Amino acid sequence: MKKSVQIYDTTLRDGTQAENFNLSVTDKIRISHKFDSLGIDFIEGGWPGSNPLAVDFFNKMQGEKLNHAKLTAFGSTRLFANSCEKDKNLQALIDAKTPVITIFGKSWDIHVYDALRIELEDNLLIIEESLAYLKPHVEKLFYDAEHFFDGFKKNQDYALASLDKAIIGGADCLILCDTNGGMLPHEVQPIIERVQGFIRERGSHVDLGIHAHNDTETAVANSLLALSLGVNQVQGTMNGYGERCGNANLASIIPALSLKMGYEAKSLNNIDKLYDTAMLVDELANLPHNKYQPYVGRSAFAHKGGIHVSAVKRNPLTYEHIEPEKVGNIRRILISDQAGKSNVIHKAKKFGIELDA
Amino acid sequence: MKKSVQIYDTTLRDGTQAENFNLSVTDKIRISHKFDSLGIDFIEGGWPGSNPLAVDFFNKMQGEKLNHAKLTAFGSTRLFANSCEKDKNLQALIDAKTPVITIFGKSWDIHVYDALRIELEDNLLIIEESLAYLKPHVEKLFYDAEHFFDGFKKNQDYALASLDKAIIGGADCLILCDTNGGMLPHEVQPIIERVQGFIRERGSHVDLGIHAHNDTETAVANSLLALSLGVNQVQGTMNGYGERCGNANLASIIPALSLKMGYEAKSLNNIDKLYDTAMLVDELANLPHNKYQPYVGRSAFAHKGGIHVSAVKRNPLTYEHIEPEKVGNIRRILISDQAGKSNVIHKAKKFGIELDA
Repeated sequence: MKKSVQIYDTTLRDGTQAENFNLSVTDKIRISHKFDSLGIDFIEGGWPGSNPLAVDFFNKMQGEKLNHAKLTAFGSTRLFANSCEKDKNLQALIDAKTPVITIFGKSWDIHVYDALRIELEDNLLIIEESLAYLKPHVEKLFYDAEHFFDGFKKNQDYALASLDKAIIGGADCLILCDTNGGMLPHEVQPIIERVQGFIRERGSHVDLGIHAHNDTETAVANSLLALSLGVNQVQGTMNGYGERCGNANLASIIPALSLKMGYEAKSLNNIDKLYDTAMLVDELANLPHNKYQPYVGRSAFAHKGGIHVSAVKRNPLTYEHIEPEKVGNIRRILISDQAGKSNVIHKAKKFGIELDA
Repeated sequence: MKKSVQIYDTTLRDGTQAENFNLSVTDKIRISHKFDSLGIDFIEGGWPGSNPLAVDFFNKMQGEKLNHAKLTAFGSTRLFANSCEKDKNLQALIDAKTPVITIFGKSWDIHVYDALRIELEDNLLIIEESLAYLKPHVEKLFYDAEHFFDGFKKNQDYALASLDKAIIGGADCLILCDTNGGMLPHEVQPIIERVQGFIRERGSHVDLGIHAHNDTETAVANSLLALSLGVNQVQGTMNGYGERCGNANLASIIPALSLKMGYEAKSLNNIDKLYDTAMLVDELANLPHNKYQPYVGRSAFAHKGGIHVSAVKRNPLTYEHIEPEKVGNIRRILISDQAGKSNVIHKAKKFGIELDA
C-alpha cells in the first residue's frame, strides 16, 4: 500500500517574504489555479491580519473555484491583551472564509520573553484559546509551532507543553517549524521521534507536519527525513522562495516522494506539470529562472563533459537519476571546451549537418 | 577533542562541468590562492588527460606557492587496452607533478558494460593496477568510486569488490561518489555503515570520503550526514557549481562543520573569509550571485516581514541561526509591503531622517 502525504504550499505567504519576490493579487489567483491543477492539497494564501493585499486576495478567491486544493488563511495566536472576540487578527482569519486556517504560536521560551514579552504560562493560554475559538469556523485547523526545533533544544518541556495546548485547542495537525532554518539533518530523527512518543503517550492521533527553512541548505533533506519517519504533512514553496534563504522547495520534494519514496498524493500523479508550474512562478515574480535547480532547472539534465555525453547516448541511466520527461523537463547536450566527439556528433545530427568521417 | 576533517575542493574541475561556468587558466590560479588562504586542504585543479587548459594550469602552478592547500590532479583509471606505461591519461597525471592524485573508477556494473564495454573482472584489474602504478609518484593517492551509491544498490558485492581493489592498489582515501545525485538522505546511513564494516573486516584503516551531487537538492545534507557517521573527507565546490544541478556546496558545508558540528580543519578557522571567497568565484565566472544562498547570500540575513524585524532588533537570535559576521556577511533590513514600523524606523535612523512620533 502506498503511503499518503499532505502537500501544503506557502509560496503565496511565506514565499513572498523573500527579497525581490513580489506577487500581485492577480498573480496569486493565477498561481492558485496552477497549484490546484498540479494537485497541491493546501494553498496558504496569505496573512489577512497583516496585509490589505491578503484581504483582497481572499475576497476575490471567494469567486474562484478550486477543484482539489483547500485554500488556507494564516495568522498568529491572539494578542494576550485581547479577548478572542476582540482580536483583529483572529477576526480577519474568520472573515477570510477559507475552509482551512493555520495559526502559529511560540514554542521557544526566549521568543515568549523577547518577542511577545509575556509570561510562559500566558503564551500557553493564548495557544489553546485561539485554536478553540477558531475550531468551529473551519473544516481543518492547523497549528504551526514556530521555532519548534530551536525551542525543543533549549527547553524541551516547554516546547512539548505548547504542542499539548494546541492538541487541547483542537488542532488537526501540528506542524513543527524550523523557522530560523538552522537545523542539520542528523538532528531531525531524535526530535521527531520524541514528539511522536509524546503524542502517543497522550493518547492523541493528531497529524504531524514539517515546515523547514533553507539557511543551512538542508530544508529539502530535513523535510524528506521527517516524512520518512512518519510525519504526514510537508510545507514548502515552489522553487524554494521564502525569507532569507527560502523555504523547503516543493519542486524538489514532490518528485522525490512520488518517484523515489513510494508516496501517494494528488500532486504526485501530476508531476509532469511540475516544470511548467515552477516556470510560471518565476515568470509572474519576474525573477530569473535558476537553471541549476534540481528536477525543473534548464540545466538539470544538461550534459557538458564528453565522456558523460558518450555514456548517456548509450544508456541515459548512466548520468541521469530520473527520466527528465517525468517532471516535464528535457535532456540537453552542451558544447564547450569540455565537449568530446559525442557532443559534436549529437549537435550536427540535430541541425542536419553532415560530417566527414 | 575536536574532530578533524579534510576539505577537498573540485570547483576547478567538477565545477567547470556546470552549464555557463567557465574559467580561464588565470582565473583558476587566482581562485587557487583564494582557496589556499581560506584554508582548503586539497584543490583539484583539473583533468590533465582530458583538456589542454588543465595541462597549462598545472604547468603554471609549478611556479606558484600554496601555503596550506595541496594541489591535486584528477583522472581516470587506465584504458583496459593499454599498459599503465603507455596510458596517456596516467602519464598526463604524473606529468602534472602534483603532490596528490585522485583517480576515478567504476563501481556500478552497468557502467562497466555500457560505458567502458569491458568485463567486470577487467575493471577490477585496471583499478588496482592504475593505483599501484601511480602510488610511488605522490604524497597522497585518492580513489573516487564513481556511482558508488547507485552501484551498491544494484550490486553490493561488486561495488565493495571495487573498493577492495583500490585498497590493494594503495589508495589513502576511498571517496564514495553519488555521481548522478539521485540519493536521498535516509539512504545514506545504512550504506556508509556497511562500507565502514567492510573496511573494518578487511583490517584496513583507509580514510573514507563523500562526493555528492545535488540532483535531489540534498547534496549538502547527504555530505553532512556521512561526516556525522565518521567519514573524514568531504568533496564539493564553491557555491555548489557543478554538472547539471551542481556539487555539494562547500560554502554551506564548511560553516556547518565549524559553527555547528565541532569539527576542526584549517578552513574552519578562516570562515570569516567565506563570503569574499564565494563572491570571487561568481565574479571570475561572470555569473550572477545567488542572493538566496545560505550563509554567503546577500539575502541570507535580510529581514522583510515587520514582526521579524521587530524581534531581530530585540534579539538577533530570534530569526538568525548564526551571527552573519562569522562568515563575513551582514544583516540587512528590507522595505516592502511586508514591512512594519520597525523596518521604517531602522531605515530612517540609518539615513538620518527624523520622524514625528
